[in-house]
Amino acid sequence: MPKLTAVYHIAADAESIASRARALAVEQSVEMPVEAIASQSIRDDIVGTVEDIIDLGGGTFAVRIGLSLATTGNEPGQIMNMLFGNASILDDVTLVDTVFPAEMVSALTGPNAGIAGLRARARADRRALTCSALKPQGLSAPELGRLAAAMAEGGLDFIKDDHGLADQRYSPIAERIAAVAAAVRATGAGTTYIPSLTGTLDDIRRGVALARDNGLSMIMIAPMISGVATLSAIARDNPDMAVMTHPALAGAARIAPALLIGKLFRLFGGDAQVFPNHGGRFGYSRAECRTLAANAREAVPGKRDAMPVPAGGMTLERVDEILDFYGPDTMLLIGGNLLAAGERLASEARRLQDRVAAHRYGREA
Amino acid sequence: MPKLTAVYHIAADAESIASRARALAVEQSVEMPVEAIASQSIRDDIVGTVEDIIDLGGGTFAVRIGLSLATTGNEPGQIMNMLFGNASILDDVTLVDTVFPAEMVSALTGPNAGIAGLRARARADRRALTCSALKPQGLSAPELGRLAAAMAEGGLDFIKDDHGLADQRYSPIAERIAAVAAAVRATGAGTTYIPSLTGTLDDIRRGVALARDNGLSMIMIAPMISGVATLSAIARDNPDMAVMTHPALAGAARIAPALLIGKLFRLFGGDAQVFPNHGGRFGYSRAECRTLAANAREAVPGKRDAMPVPAGGMTLERVDEILDFYGPDTMLLIGGNLLAAGERLASEARRLQDRVAAHRYGREA
Repeated sequence: MPKLTAVYHIAADAESIASRARALAVEQSVEMPVEAIASQSIRDDIVGTVEDIIDLGGGTFAVRIGLSLATTGNEPGQIMNMLFGNASILDDVTLVDTVFPAEMVSALTGPNAGIAGLRARARADRRALTCSALKPQGLSAPELGRLAAAMAEGGLDFIKDDHGLADQRYSPIAERIAAVAAAVRATGAGTTYIPSLTGTLDDIRRGVALARDNGLSMIMIAPMISGVATLSAIARDNPDMAVMTHPALAGAARIAPALLIGKLFRLFGGDAQVFPNHGGRFGYSRAECRTLAANAREAVPGKRDAMPVPAGGMTLERVDEILDFYGPDTMLLIGGNLLAAGERLASEARRLQDRVAAHRYGREA
Repeated sequence: MPKLTAVYHIAADAESIASRARALAVEQSVEMPVEAIASQSIRDDIVGTVEDIIDLGGGTFAVRIGLSLATTGNEPGQIMNMLFGNASILDDVTLVDTVFPAEMVSALTGPNAGIAGLRARARADRRALTCSALKPQGLSAPELGRLAAAMAEGGLDFIKDDHGLADQRYSPIAERIAAVAAAVRATGAGTTYIPSLTGTLDDIRRGVALARDNGLSMIMIAPMISGVATLSAIARDNPDMAVMTHPALAGAARIAPALLIGKLFRLFGGDAQVFPNHGGRFGYSRAECRTLAANAREAVPGKRDAMPVPAGGMTLERVDEILDFYGPDTMLLIGGNLLAAGERLASEARRLQDRVAAHRYGREA
């Protein structure tokens, strides 16, 4: 029977790691004393198994645990639960990777548009794509529309809402989506506007309907706030919509970002995954960012690939370095640094756009 | 204008903490350079403000940041986003407490039943309440029903599903709820069965309908998997249902459990909050557990209180100590240790029940 494999890093010593690994396998499966389980088939098929233990040095061990597919029902929330539900409460355990059997991957949603679908929206076959963010919070819908118009005039491919924009009195979502979509459309630039949708599944469904009514083809969700099941249901029920994911509440320390954002958010339906680039104001390393991008783009039979979207304190000055690092299948998200241009926003956006279009890739990509 | 106050612990040195705190206040509000914000009202009302910095020693500072109520729209997911969305990605920041203004508390759901409602279900005015868990995963619905019957015969007040039980082929949720509810009812014991509901908001709504159809009055949700907005919507739309919350995926390190589980889950609609007791196999300290319980029970005008449910590797032998620590407004959850009794499950459940009923509180409570 094929298993779902979870890879954890456990802080332990050489004497205790074997029993620590067994205890984790039990914690993440039956969560009770195995000797008290009467059923042989449960002991054989449902109890987690320790597949491998590797000493990484420094008191850290990589432990591979096999989990029963049947326990997940291929439901995204339950997959998170089986992978890291109780383990999240253990101080010494980090979830670093998973291996999903084909049967499970096949049952999951995956991206609707993929990199090709995002490139089609941007009418850009080969170069990296660009994106900026509408902020700050507190602006009215017409003010956000004016910012978006300047960014679209500058030729940006995508404009996303700040993830802090929700359904607030100063900018109710229906007004915001209508105003920004109209402002972008009026420029004739072909820029794709990505509204951020929040709240319950019902709220987000209403947001998708608003987006569609305003001619939009992409939305943004923060799966760790909305729940991964909400992401998956929205992606599944709206095959015409691409989904950008935001890493809010995704934590840094306990689930490896390359796994959670690069791999899982994609399998649950994300087309473009925002994540904090290395060297900005967040703590992700170059290696973590590289693996995250590789996971998003990795060939998975029957599933579209997804676009890595490095962000977080990025500047125009870093564009060449970032493009060399990530290569062309990348969407650059530069928010605050563009917005700081104030009245010169459209020309700064144009400068970003031109720089990306003119970039010649160096060694790294 | 009243603010929402968030208290963070930041790892920093004395020279950098002031600028680090200001940067966090910006990160969790406008997330862009403040000098680039043209609007005076946004700079005055929306940008987060550093209210207080206290040196806790050892390179840790407690920082109080005031956030605009308007940015949250009083929506639970957006509240999590404003409190810890981007900050969750910062390695050096922990969210340790919040102070919600009355206007915000008033707009949130809060528990439907509260401690009094749970006591009414158990017909127990003063003593601590008891609970056990149906597991392991892999059992069929009739097998789970037989376990539940034994626990009910032993007189337990509540029986919850293991949080690993979802909608799995070996025990589909409709069969499980019907079988367990019927088995418990047949004992005539008055035990309340609490099914675990997973998946999307739609899935959980169907689960609530199943619960109600089977005469049940309480359900369990894992808010960090389902999304806190899902918890809140379910609690709000089903005032006859009490809600137990499960801490799966709630993490240990980055949001203080006393805040997330004791305070926020309650305000978002949880009546009974499961959490790992100190001295078990999870890392919560005695102080953290004490504060969590105090937060759950704290008097909040217009909101019901909530029942702390210590759990996680607990044994019958620890009952007296645990009761002395938490006092009578507590639901004891003992799962694996009871189930290990096998054929003697009903009599072990009875032993737990009698011990709780006979307990005379010592000094600590």
